Amino acid sequence: MSSPESANGRVAARALRERLAELADLGTTIALLGWDRETVMPERGAESRGELTATLERLAHERAADPTLGDLIDAAALEAGAPDAPPDDGVIARIARRDRDRATRIPGELVVAIARATADAIPAWMQAREESDFARFRPHLERQVELRREVAGCFPDFAHPYDALLDSFEPGATTASVRDVFARLREGLVPLVEAIAERPPPSPLHGPFPVAEQRTLGLEIARSFGFEDDAWRIDDAVHPFAQSIARTDVRVTARWNEADLSGIFAVMHEVGHGLYEAGIDPALDRTTLGTGVSLGIHESQSRTWENQVGRSRPFWEHWYPRAQAVFPEALGDVPLEDFHRSINVVRPTLIRVDADEATYALHVILRFELEVALIEGTLAVADVPAAWNERMRDMLGVEVPDDRHGCLQDIHWSYGELGYFPTYALGNVVSGQLWAAAQRELPGLDAALQAGDCSQLREWLRRTIHHHGRRLDPPELLREATGSDLDPEPLLDYLREKYTALYDL
Amino acid sequence: MSSPESANGRVAARALRERLAELADLGTTIALLGWDRETVMPERGAESRGELTATLERLAHERAADPTLGDLIDAAALEAGAPDAPPDDGVIARIARRDRDRATRIPGELVVAIARATADAIPAWMQAREESDFARFRPHLERQVELRREVAGCFPDFAHPYDALLDSFEPGATTASVRDVFARLREGLVPLVEAIAERPPPSPLHGPFPVAEQRTLGLEIARSFGFEDDAWRIDDAVHPFAQSIARTDVRVTARWNEADLSGIFAVMHEVGHGLYEAGIDPALDRTTLGTGVSLGIHESQSRTWENQVGRSRPFWEHWYPRAQAVFPEALGDVPLEDFHRSINVVRPTLIRVDADEATYALHVILRFELEVALIEGTLAVADVPAAWNERMRDMLGVEVPDDRHGCLQDIHWSYGELGYFPTYALGNVVSGQLWAAAQRELPGLDAALQAGDCSQLREWLRRTIHHHGRRLDPPELLREATGSDLDPEPLLDYLREKYTALYDL
Repeated sequence: MSSPESANGRVAARALRERLAELADLGTTIALLGWDRETVMPERGAESRGELTATLERLAHERAADPTLGDLIDAAALEAGAPDAPPDDGVIARIARRDRDRATRIPGELVVAIARATADAIPAWMQAREESDFARFRPHLERQVELRREVAGCFPDFAHPYDALLDSFEPGATTASVRDVFARLREGLVPLVEAIAERPPPSPLHGPFPVAEQRTLGLEIARSFGFEDDAWRIDDAVHPFAQSIARTDVRVTARWNEADLSGIFAVMHEVGHGLYEAGIDPALDRTTLGTGVSLGIHESQSRTWENQVGRSRPFWEHWYPRAQAVFPEALGDVPLEDFHRSINVVRPTLIRVDADEATYALHVILRFELEVALIEGTLAVADVPAAWNERMRDMLGVEVPDDRHGCLQDIHWSYGELGYFPTYALGNVVSGQLWAAAQRELPGLDAALQAGDCSQLREWLRRTIHHHGRRLDPPELLREATGSDLDPEPLLDYLREKYTALYDL
Repeated sequence: MSSPESANGRVAARALRERLAELADLGTTIALLGWDRETVMPERGAESRGELTATLERLAHERAADPTLGDLIDAAALEAGAPDAPPDDGVIARIARRDRDRATRIPGELVVAIARATADAIPAWMQAREESDFARFRPHLERQVELRREVAGCFPDFAHPYDALLDSFEPGATTASVRDVFARLREGLVPLVEAIAERPPPSPLHGPFPVAEQRTLGLEIARSFGFEDDAWRIDDAVHPFAQSIARTDVRVTARWNEADLSGIFAVMHEVGHGLYEAGIDPALDRTTLGTGVSLGIHESQSRTWENQVGRSRPFWEHWYPRAQAVFPEALGDVPLEDFHRSINVVRPTLIRVDADEATYALHVILRFELEVALIEGTLAVADVPAAWNERMRDMLGVEVPDDRHGCLQDIHWSYGELGYFPTYALGNVVSGQLWAAAQRELPGLDAALQAGDCSQLREWLRRTIHHHGRRLDPPELLREATGSDLDPEPLLDYLREKYTALYDL
């Protein structure tokens, strides 16, 4: 123990970094197996891929739960208390302890039971949705709710059992705080959506928008956001997603539809996710802190680029002439004003994934309310369809014709992933707060977007959000970036202002 | 221990299969990391990819060297001796012991020293080749030879130190047997090549062969060989290779050149490799026996499809009209006879990878002779250029202008991979033996190829070679498939017959 490295008392910190690098590498490898499966794998590779992924996940879990890792974390935390220790050492030890706690508190039998329940539930959900037959899915959802209540029971320190589920997707978020934020959001959104519904709708765009040209334009826009040809890829996938394999190996995916421009907006969305991962401090590479801190913060990035930028007037003042040149038939005779209105249509609909910027969060609030009630035990699974349909009527004024277009539309519950949905709307809320802060701090932002220059915004987001990786938990990150706690008002102000102008409210 | 599975005494066999499945999955994952790197990875992902791969390789090595695996192999071997034990159990235990022996006999420090020497040698080789400056590469090659002699020293049971190196690529091959086979091969090839050199050469083809059309035709031919759209992929790569991720996820790569049809022949070659992996008995999946048994046998498959099939007259009797339709400008006025001659040009050249079917093995024999002498210590690294150039003169009658076109042309020695080269020519030899056997056993083979039907040959190769995976070592496999030991005569007969007809010898 006489090497220069050990002399300064960071033996455990360095050893911990090595172990975490291994865990990070295993996580990245699993992510690559997933990217490959969704984009390039031949169809019949699926069975083998399931086995491969299961093996890697088991190895990763074994390494994360290894008792010697716990000892190393304790020793590293102790070292990190020394006055001259680098500040990251303490953060790394603290987050490693939290990850490890999550990985070890849930007993192996419960993990296996969840995997089994999920394997049964997915095909059952698929068939139930196909046949719009909730009764077929009901026992599976009951089982998943029961298992998630058991998971929550493994974390008795939380004030509310749903907090334990939420926390794994959104560290620091609580049921109480989300409930409060969502209540205020709902109060603001419902009258806004109603007011818009009274105005004449924008004229829809008429395609076709040939896919090859959409790819060209999508890539040009992606590059203006920060996509780099030697460090990013874009591929097709049935369900678009973004996956970073490294800060300089970022992979986004898209799905194209000749009838509309949804593919281009999906690219903007996924590039927003990718920019987050690409912008993390290189010092956090392979530390397990070098990824996005939460699903909500991640979604705030994708939403900012897709909505606040991608559906804004200044952005299209630059890009619309190019879009008209690329789609002369579809857009040649459409003035920018009409185009801008048509990409900002607001209309209460049945399906979350098709929802617009104003109604989207209401779909999420509905799911959050039902999930909390299921975990609290105040709602029986059998009563989910009725509760769903009632809320759709109350919040969006639409009648649900069948469960296929209602409570059977999403796959998430068949995975038992309760606590995931709220992060989608938290992303919207945070994007509203970030946008307000960016407008305050970057006075030339609109002019830059009008000139096709996104670098100012990208660098601001990198500095305030991306750079930190998991160093700061979402509440702290948000406070540092915007000066406020979670607050729906900036999003509501932004939407009110935008739609008042667009719809003469 | 009262479950039905354990009651029949196969506790250890089943446990061993589980452990080997994990090792197989790790190997497959490493292969996928490599495929991804060579085909789709963004350029700047390289640094991170190196770390990822190193982590996975270290994990795989740890698991392979785990002492409890050794105990399990012993226990499984004991169980496999029982009269009612399934025959595969014994083979699996035997091969697992051999793999483990290889993985553990080389001390960790030597593995690290090789990795370091290789990391230094590769850039040195690149620069040396660029500048045609052997002196720059010399110390690195000296170090690699020294380290490989140490590796050989870890396996004192072999009769010759080079055997230990050879055996890791070609189980069962010995320096003595390869020396003998190569001597006879050389004796047959040198006069054949000389005789052809006295005849007028075929007129060369004149392109261009547009790449898009080459891809189309290449895929059509691949499908006729056995490429299946839902279980295979074809991608571009700088150095074409084949990689199976699973029996039903086989990935081949190609490089295209508008000036000639080399891309199509590369596809035939790589599909030959892929068919081997795709044809292995599903019972061997994830047992570590479910891959090709050796590099030589693998190469025999690629050579069979590229040469014996892909450069044959019957094959092109079916495909040439299609090729003419695809390349009307280049081939429209070229009769089949001229085309067939032009794809069978024989010409002594300096570069191995550009060599034709008749001269190729001579390049390999040269390397084998030098490698054996280097390991024996009868040739000093400093004398490699002179020895190389002398042999090129003797065997091929060509003068080497500089080391860049001589002993610096291949990357293999910078990896220290001595023992690898001979497998290329062993592949040629085996393909000759298999072709003779197939002609004997499949009397309608030529007619089938003339009709574009490759299924007869593919199924015969599957039955005789592919199916066995690593169950049989190459010498045994060859004996079962052809009735003979390694023998260059069938290859020589095939070449003599072919070129006598083509060149009026």
